[in-house]
Amino acid sequence: MGSCPVKSARGTKTCVSLKNTVLGASTMAPWYAPSLRSRLAPLLLFLQMGFIFIYGFCTEVESNVSVDGITFRNFYPNFQDVNVIVFLGFGFLSTFLVRYGFSGCGFNVLVSVMATQLAIILNGIESWYYRGKISINLRSLVVAEMCTVSALISIGAVLGKTNPVHLVFIALLEVSGFVLNKWFLQTLLKVQPLNSIMQLHIFGAFFGLMLTWMLYRKGSELPFEKEKSDHKSGLFSMLGTVFLWMFWPSFNSVLVGDAPSGRKLGVVCSTYLALAVSAVTAAAVSVLSSPKGKLNLNHMQSCILAGGVAIGVSMSVVHQPWEAMSIGFIAAIVSTIGYRYLKIHMLLAFQCHDTCAMLSTHGLPGLLGWLAHLVLQLKDCDDHTMGIRFAVVHICTLFITITLSLSMGIITGCLLKLNFWRPPQDKKCFDDQAFWEFPHLAVQK
Amino acid sequence: MGSCPVKSARGTKTCVSLKNTVLGASTMAPWYAPSLRSRLAPLLLFLQMGFIFIYGFCTEVESNVSVDGITFRNFYPNFQDVNVIVFLGFGFLSTFLVRYGFSGCGFNVLVSVMATQLAIILNGIESWYYRGKISINLRSLVVAEMCTVSALISIGAVLGKTNPVHLVFIALLEVSGFVLNKWFLQTLLKVQPLNSIMQLHIFGAFFGLMLTWMLYRKGSELPFEKEKSDHKSGLFSMLGTVFLWMFWPSFNSVLVGDAPSGRKLGVVCSTYLALAVSAVTAAAVSVLSSPKGKLNLNHMQSCILAGGVAIGVSMSVVHQPWEAMSIGFIAAIVSTIGYRYLKIHMLLAFQCHDTCAMLSTHGLPGLLGWLAHLVLQLKDCDDHTMGIRFAVVHICTLFITITLSLSMGIITGCLLKLNFWRPPQDKKCFDDQAFWEFPHLAVQK
Amino acid sequence: MGSCPVKSARGTKTCVSLKNTVLGASTMAPWYAPSLRSRLAPLLLFLQMGFIFIYGFCTEVESNVSVDGITFRNFYPNFQDVNVIVFLGFGFLSTFLVRYGFSGCGFNVLVSVMATQLAIILNGIESWYYRGKISINLRSLVVAEMCTVSALISIGAVLGKTNPVHLVFIALLEVSGFVLNKWFLQTLLKVQPLNSIMQLHIFGAFFGLMLTWMLYRKGSELPFEKEKSDHKSGLFSMLGTVFLWMFWPSFNSVLVGDAPSGRKLGVVCSTYLALAVSAVTAAAVSVLSSPKGKLNLNHMQSCILAGGVAIGVSMSVVHQPWEAMSIGFIAAIVSTIGYRYLKIHMLLAFQCHDTCAMLSTHGLPGLLGWLAHLVLQLKDCDDHTMGIRFAVVHICTLFITITLSLSMGIITGCLLKLNFWRPPQDKKCFDDQAFWEFPHLAVQK
Repeated sequence: MGSCPVKSARGTKTCVSLKNTVLGASTMAPWYAPSLRSRLAPLLLFLQMGFIFIYGFCTEVESNVSVDGITFRNFYPNFQDVNVIVFLGFGFLSTFLVRYGFSGCGFNVLVSVMATQLAIILNGIESWYYRGKISINLRSLVVAEMCTVSALISIGAVLGKTNPVHLVFIALLEVSGFVLNKWFLQTLLKVQPLNSIMQLHIFGAFFGLMLTWMLYRKGSELPFEKEKSDHKSGLFSMLGTVFLWMFWPSFNSVLVGDAPSGRKLGVVCSTYLALAVSAVTAAAVSVLSSPKGKLNLNHMQSCILAGGVAIGVSMSVVHQPWEAMSIGFIAAIVSTIGYRYLKIHMLLAFQCHDTCAMLSTHGLPGLLGWLAHLVLQLKDCDDHTMGIRFAVVHICTLFITITLSLSMGIITGCLLKLNFWRPPQDKKCFDDQAFWEFPHLAVQK
Repeated sequence: MGSCPVKSARGTKTCVSLKNTVLGASTMAPWYAPSLRSRLAPLLLFLQMGFIFIYGFCTEVESNVSVDGITFRNFYPNFQDVNVIVFLGFGFLSTFLVRYGFSGCGFNVLVSVMATQLAIILNGIESWYYRGKISINLRSLVVAEMCTVSALISIGAVLGKTNPVHLVFIALLEVSGFVLNKWFLQTLLKVQPLNSIMQLHIFGAFFGLMLTWMLYRKGSELPFEKEKSDHKSGLFSMLGTVFLWMFWPSFNSVLVGDAPSGRKLGVVCSTYLALAVSAVTAAAVSVLSSPKGKLNLNHMQSCILAGGVAIGVSMSVVHQPWEAMSIGFIAAIVSTIGYRYLKIHMLLAFQCHDTCAMLSTHGLPGLLGWLAHLVLQLKDCDDHTMGIRFAVVHICTLFITITLSLSMGIITGCLLKLNFWRPPQDKKCFDDQAFWEFPHLAVQK
Repeated sequence: MGSCPVKSARGTKTCVSLKNTVLGASTMAPWYAPSLRSRLAPLLLFLQMGFIFIYGFCTEVESNVSVDGITFRNFYPNFQDVNVIVFLGFGFLSTFLVRYGFSGCGFNVLVSVMATQLAIILNGIESWYYRGKISINLRSLVVAEMCTVSALISIGAVLGKTNPVHLVFIALLEVSGFVLNKWFLQTLLKVQPLNSIMQLHIFGAFFGLMLTWMLYRKGSELPFEKEKSDHKSGLFSMLGTVFLWMFWPSFNSVLVGDAPSGRKLGVVCSTYLALAVSAVTAAAVSVLSSPKGKLNLNHMQSCILAGGVAIGVSMSVVHQPWEAMSIGFIAAIVSTIGYRYLKIHMLLAFQCHDTCAMLSTHGLPGLLGWLAHLVLQLKDCDDHTMGIRFAVVHICTLFITITLSLSMGIITGCLLKLNFWRPPQDKKCFDDQAFWEFPHLAVQK
């Protein structure tokens, strides 16, 4: 695909020999990406057979749903919306790299199903301990997919610089860490299950940040040769964004019970309004911060989601439309400015090469949501003692989440630095050709 | 992206200077698209903060839904279908221009959320006047998005020849006009709310037509340099079409109550059948009217929707499958022939450069649906007096709608002709580069 | 699109004459694809008017749904999921050919609506015979679309080598054959309606196989000039795959009644798990069977669906998660190995040029599901006599299905071999330009 600049002039053969000559010393390094045959295939088959084995002994499909027969039908569209978020939304969002589309979308499916299978087991350990069986139903699938989303956020930070073996390990370790964190929060701090799940944005973003810091490659200050997008890959990515943006109200509301009547409607409307405001604000800030007064497609792809993220973390205390809209407004400003200025700063000053700017897209809006939760809860509190108690618990929640995500990120990073996993060379970063066959590929004219 | 033919040979600087020399007199005109920094960003921020302010004082999320708890869950999938229509359907339908994909899709999100926020307020003015609060629920969001659709139809007619500041103004004025029209019809003529909303196709198409006539640029008789599509942008556009086509039954039926039992099923089946017939007929007419006997992708993208539009306008009187199918059949013929012959005639004879042929896609099928409504209602009427009364009201409905849409279109057009809004030059029409940054864009080889 | 190398230098006319000279003897053959004006347009119009006529006399929208009012709302999202499978899933799955995207997606819509309209009538013949009317409701639409899916599977085998007239005939004859098969199975062998519908994978695959054998073109051993994909068309196709993969649980469960409580949930979970396992296993086998240890996008597009197909055929007896996962595991292995080795073997040894490898994607997993059904049912059977009786019926089911699909395939193939239908020349296979106008197409730079 034309990685050699003199191709057209001299033909392919000359070009390769020329390269070998020019490269001199580096010809000793393998020219082609290392084969993953002996790594990826056994790993996947082994893990998959292990999962089948565990599922055979420990799981059952919930059968006593005579009462919930109607619930299944009501819940099923919501479940599919979460599926859309995971497989279409995140999958196509990561196709923006011009030569990394197959990997962005294909590995997303692969990694998601591995992580979801693991998350179902981990989430069910308690139930298995007490009842001997993990019951599978739509709700447990949805919770598992939400844990998967936290892994997908982490993966966004190292997109293009890892091979699928890495990605599977990242996903499995991240999901384990996230479930552990969820359990800590629920057991130690008595945090509501829903609130603990919604830490996924913060956990995923900081885990990914640590990971990309550990896996830093020298020379990343300049963009990689293939780290760029074109018109069409931008549109594919926009497609993923629109799916995420549209179904984010479903994602936030899916686990909300309707016990205090209308609660679910409240979450849907809040998320919808926050997303609407985010879209407008992200566009405005993007134009404002551009010297030529132009929009940036990356901002439109990532930062319009900031409102949804922030509401997700704070939704249990957002009651008024204007609160949701203000949160969306501030989240979009923070996220867009973070994307414009913080991303490059993180790279140059801290050696964190965050491919999809997950810190700005999920980390900062998540923190903002956490703050909004604190402020709004304190505002509603009449009793000072209650307020202080809540504040302490809330700060501990954040502290535990960030500590655990950073430390898990470092552990995972150490593990992945081994050359045993055959990381792609710098030249093969952001390139599908390292992982995919192109037998009948048309020569682009 | 190769707008300069000698770029590769001499480098960018030489190229620019060369251009300046070659262009001679026209060098006085600004070469780059005018910056929107001082126009778009303040406008968006000001409007958005205004909306937050208004929402803070006037709106509340509906809370007394104890009875409708089950309704929320039933309505939510329908609500998301309408979202799909607005954000995915219209968004990707307008990516067919080869260099205008980012704008087509990105501005659609931007404009839709602005228009929806305004429409929620305007639709709720009456409730605000009497109750002091505008309540937000899924139904009010859906109605607001339907008003937005009428704005999106208008925008289709001026696609590519305007900047986002124009588009925001068009959307806000169009939605205001449409809500006014809806209020006129409901108050003066006692038209059913649903029927008045469904005038959106006619209102949007004629508003857009007037707009494109006002904004006519000299030299539009020949296609603009970048007014063309390629294989991949055609497929993106087809994706939007398929979404529209598939979820059109949801769009038509979402506000239909199920009071006369089975009414909703009737609308869904009618729309489904009409769309199916439209798809076949549009293909047939497209082949028949082509000298070489080939299909035209534009026809497949627009005209297969004609049946859904026509049924939408006439659905309250369509009861038999064959009626729906016949309406779909005729609508597709009218729409395809309109696209093939009328579009160019409107351009040459009336100076209406209707980019997406909205007159043929929404205007004519809408008028046909209006006619079908009249005919079928009269057929069902036993009483002559009733029939004549209905006919008079029905004709007044159309008359008011068209008058208001034309006059609002002219007013909007006058406003937008000001150079203050910095319209893109002719050379920058249909070009993303006027509005979007391309920092890491891959050079297409 | 640059099919003529000297176009830009000399203009189109010179170019054509040059070609004519160079081609010498072959100038006698028509250079342009034959016009379909006199074939396709009358056929479509005639059939469509016929359908309207039949629908006018024989159908009615179900009106006595006072009890099922709530069912409509519950069923509608499921119905839309099946729509997504048919129009988005299969439509975009077949856009993987680099120059055949418009046809892959556009003809899919055309053919699906024709086949669905016919299937509604054919499925309702019995009801028409006894009650005088065919009632149309969401369930009958879903059953009709499932019959359509069997036609789409067949069409996948001949994709790119046929014109739309062929495709319409194939779809109509295949659907007729499939409905006949369904009737045979239900009447003669008392097979459950749902089980007989799920034979669609086997019926469609073998029908398509026979068809592509009948329509074999000499020289197909080597890939056709345009039978290849590129980065972007691969992504479009991946989009279709993800839609299919995500909504396959809806497809399998849509017609399952919830009478034994939780049955529907069981089918959804089984399909979901089988698909998850399939995705992992297909990737592993793809890497394992590749000499360079790389993934193949075609395998990721087709073989990850194998688990869903196999569960679809066997779902009435799959109760445990591990059973579903094991079936998904084996189905993916069979399907991927079939794609890698069997496809080329079928071409070279049996002259079956199966464009989308439908035998491996739907045929083999379907047979595996049939086998799993047999084994699991026998395992559950306590009574030997019952077991043997079931086995006989089950084997007869398969025998009838395959016999009928092969014979219908041969009959259809004979009919389509007539030159009257103007098949595209070898040079115009896999090429949109034979069927679509490209008026404003941008020259790709």
